[in-house]
Amino acid sequence: MDDEVMTPLSPDECWEMLREEEFARLAFRMVDEVHITPINYAVDHDTLLFRSAGGDKLLAVAMGSEVALEIDRFDEDHARSVVVRGSARILDEHEEHRAENLPLRPWVGTVKYNVVEITPRVVTGRAFRLSRPWLHMTLHE
Amino acid sequence: MDDEVMTPLSPDECWEMLREEEFARLAFRMVDEVHITPINYAVDHDTLLFRSAGGDKLLAVAMGSEVALEIDRFDEDHARSVVVRGSARILDEHEEHRAENLPLRPWVGTVKYNVVEITPRVVTGRAFRLSRPWLHMTLHE
Repeated sequence: MDDEVMTPLSPDECWEMLREEEFARLAFRMVDEVHITPINYAVDHDTLLFRSAGGDKLLAVAMGSEVALEIDRFDEDHARSVVVRGSARILDEHEEHRAENLPLRPWVGTVKYNVVEITPRVVTGRAFRLSRPWLHMTLHE
Repeated sequence: MDDEVMTPLSPDECWEMLREEEFARLAFRMVDEVHITPINYAVDHDTLLFRSAGGDKLLAVAMGSEVALEIDRFDEDHARSVVVRGSARILDEHEEHRAENLPLRPWVGTVKYNVVEITPRVVTGRAFRLSRPWLHMTLHE
């Protein structure tokens, strides 16, 4: 690996970016399949919360599977990505108030939501410097 | 589900967005774990190609696992997301030329790359209209 191209982010940098963003992608297993879906999340202390209207996401959580969540930022020449791996569970009704004061957007309008909590086990982040080699390749065309 | 909040994208719309974007998140299994990582990809006919410098991504492909890839776009009030699920394989040396004329950015500088091909089995897309209920909640504070 070339350290000038990829540098790891510190845990503090990872959590700062997690607090700043609101959209992530959640990856989870359904039996032998891997699924990925966008979610709107919010940091609540040292956990992440999101609302689920049911379906695949919720089923996977109900089955107690491990999940992975990714956020990222790109511009022309740089990228940063933070990945959280951990366990997910549906909050009990008496815990759902934890989501009430967080900026969580519903993805679906009118249905009843469950609130899912992700407890991170591993949080890693990387910053990349991107190159665009095809800009140079045009010299040979 | 409320159709006014979430609408499916047509296959053509999904492929159009896949051709327009260049960054995605790849989810894959490693034994019992789910991993997710950002990649730079390009569409090559009806497949997706990306370069891998080795490590987890490549190992997963070498093990023949199914993968899921997601791209998305957000603004204040709308989101769209396309998910590709399918199989991945490392291209043989005599096939690697397929990547040469595609705008694939390397994520790591100087190492030898492998080219990975994803053959989509399922391509789905959704458009969401986002609401921000906490803007209204402030009335009660």
